[in-house]
Amino acid sequence: MSKPKGFEKPIGARDYLPYAVERLRAIERNVLMCMSRWGYSQIMTPTMEYYDTVGVASSTSDQKLFKLLNNRGTTMVLRSDMTAPIARVVSSLLKEETLPIRLSYHANVYRSIEEEAGKEAEFFQTGLELVGDSSPEADAEVVALAVASLQAAGVKTFKIALGHVGFLNGILEEALPAQADAREVLKEGLLHRDYVGYREALSKLNITAMQKEELQGILRLRGGKEICKEALELSRRPLAQASIQHLCKVWEALEDYGVADHVLIDLTMIGDFSYYTGLIFEGYAAELGFPVCSGGRYDNLLQQFGRAVPATGFALKTNRILDGVNGIHSEKPLPTLIQYMASGRRKALEIASELRGKGDVVITRHVDGLDKIYESDTSDLYKEIFIFE
Amino acid sequence: MSKPKGFEKPIGARDYLPYAVERLRAIERNVLMCMSRWGYSQIMTPTMEYYDTVGVASSTSDQKLFKLLNNRGTTMVLRSDMTAPIARVVSSLLKEETLPIRLSYHANVYRSIEEEAGKEAEFFQTGLELVGDSSPEADAEVVALAVASLQAAGVKTFKIALGHVGFLNGILEEALPAQADAREVLKEGLLHRDYVGYREALSKLNITAMQKEELQGILRLRGGKEICKEALELSRRPLAQASIQHLCKVWEALEDYGVADHVLIDLTMIGDFSYYTGLIFEGYAAELGFPVCSGGRYDNLLQQFGRAVPATGFALKTNRILDGVNGIHSEKPLPTLIQYMASGRRKALEIASELRGKGDVVITRHVDGLDKIYESDTSDLYKEIFIFE
Repeated sequence: MSKPKGFEKPIGARDYLPYAVERLRAIERNVLMCMSRWGYSQIMTPTMEYYDTVGVASSTSDQKLFKLLNNRGTTMVLRSDMTAPIARVVSSLLKEETLPIRLSYHANVYRSIEEEAGKEAEFFQTGLELVGDSSPEADAEVVALAVASLQAAGVKTFKIALGHVGFLNGILEEALPAQADAREVLKEGLLHRDYVGYREALSKLNITAMQKEELQGILRLRGGKEICKEALELSRRPLAQASIQHLCKVWEALEDYGVADHVLIDLTMIGDFSYYTGLIFEGYAAELGFPVCSGGRYDNLLQQFGRAVPATGFALKTNRILDGVNGIHSEKPLPTLIQYMASGRRKALEIASELRGKGDVVITRHVDGLDKIYESDTSDLYKEIFIFE
Repeated sequence: MSKPKGFEKPIGARDYLPYAVERLRAIERNVLMCMSRWGYSQIMTPTMEYYDTVGVASSTSDQKLFKLLNNRGTTMVLRSDMTAPIARVVSSLLKEETLPIRLSYHANVYRSIEEEAGKEAEFFQTGLELVGDSSPEADAEVVALAVASLQAAGVKTFKIALGHVGFLNGILEEALPAQADAREVLKEGLLHRDYVGYREALSKLNITAMQKEELQGILRLRGGKEICKEALELSRRPLAQASIQHLCKVWEALEDYGVADHVLIDLTMIGDFSYYTGLIFEGYAAELGFPVCSGGRYDNLLQQFGRAVPATGFALKTNRILDGVNGIHSEKPLPTLIQYMASGRRKALEIASELRGKGDVVITRHVDGLDKIYESDTSDLYKEIFIFE
């Protein structure tokens, strides 16, 4: 392994130059402001967490976690998401806080495997968690706020697809109670949207034609509100029925939020996190083929930290929005240039201070002689150029 | 080693609850805004860097660095400051940029040893670098901006002490040319402000009485502008003389900046970073016994990354200001509570949206029956409480 060159940075690591920082900061500021108006307060947690607590509870697979040892030989991880750390805080520092608890965050998270595909090993998420409310109203609030957050982030055209882990698990577990492997194969097909593979796997299963039809029918369950009704008819199994009834209530609330135009139902969606238990959703921008937002309900996670309360939340994939969506343009004001000779310095610095006090950007520059001065016609980099002799 | 409990976080790691986040964010925002008005643009760099590049170039001693291996077996570090990463960027992505380059940052940095003393292993710095200008004017700009930044951070009463690494090194190296060990002992005494130890070490040295007097005289070089003159008289050695002449010019410029009242000279100061080469400074708040800001000139660092240009900069110790200075109080507006029964939901959510559009914080709450409703007289947590039946 050759030594890295002086100017090299690790693969998957990224420098943000001023123009990118301005845009990233604008997304961060606008989204957090939006969330704060819905009653969400910002929280920050450490970069490093114990592997045995937050590391294990996170939805990130073990080989994707960045691990290191601390001084005492305990394994630590760089956080791979903010949901598990926030679950820890809600179960410790905030354990006396009245429910529901509304928390927001903007944080960098780390995944080690991404670098192999040339993707970023460190990237930003801007998100929130609503803890302690299991009602459809809570799910609807979070989805409606995902719509508002995407708009605040400058994403103009997008759709949010709603799914339900309970519906899918209900059907699969009841149809294939003793065939965990077969369930996994079918789930893999859905996860990767490989519907051909799903149908093939289905055809090989030793189940009745009616059961096959039911499982095949899942693939049709994508569309608008009408999908609720179709799903209720497809399966009479109790968990599936309860899940769809919950989904219907969320949809109705979203209509009252006035955001139904941004929402569709996709019951083939399985969610990328193992801890999801109920309603899940993903946001797609018109410009991009992959989600810019994902979220869902995780009612069993907090009990791992000692506080058995339901929760739901989402995160914007901030870097994808930054790089892929032609949204926020931040306009940087041109600076004023104040040049001075030694004898004009005091006056020059006074004027600079005055202009900065008014909000102007001012760069000062000492020059030895008049021949070193920038003339205003030589540069369009400045709003104004002053000279103090 | 026992397994950590579910709710535990690593030693030296910190959670920031909403109240602390509000204050931290206010410091961050105000200081970065101040720096931007002086023409500094914000930059962000990755948490992880190569050990062999940024890790080695940083001023942090090896055992204080957090190290980990990436997938390819290369040793990485969690950045321990921002100066070395910015030197890397200035020498790579920004290598065509015209000098001087003005960059600012707000970043978390990592030091592993701090945790043993119960201190934070991860903490924030808000700072800047001015690259490509070796003049006293550049040093003065950075010191004057440190004053403005401390004020923007809400630090009301503070002093900035100026020192000069060249002066001290000049005297020591010329007085003790072949005694590197003795020089180190004297420097250690100065670094820890152990003036008794310094005098003792001095008395044991095999040098002339005049040389001892000169080295002892350093301890008196603390005060106002008059120290420049005293220092010029103490030592006629060329490097010491040149250093003090530079310091005098910086002081004169600071008078023109109108910040001389905030500044004093302390030539016993040695700087905590090994890469400093010239003027150094530390800021002390009235409330605290340790620095809230430190900075200085490092003219030899960038050549390690392939671009041999001078530079100077400073960082506010943001956490110390957050915890120790009774400065910024951020006022959080009380939320409005909108409660609704199913039939009043649409109207309730409309009003909520309207109020949020005006900048209000609004929390909505679904209730099953009128008996579940919060009455306005039962709570001073809310600005207003509405009920939609």
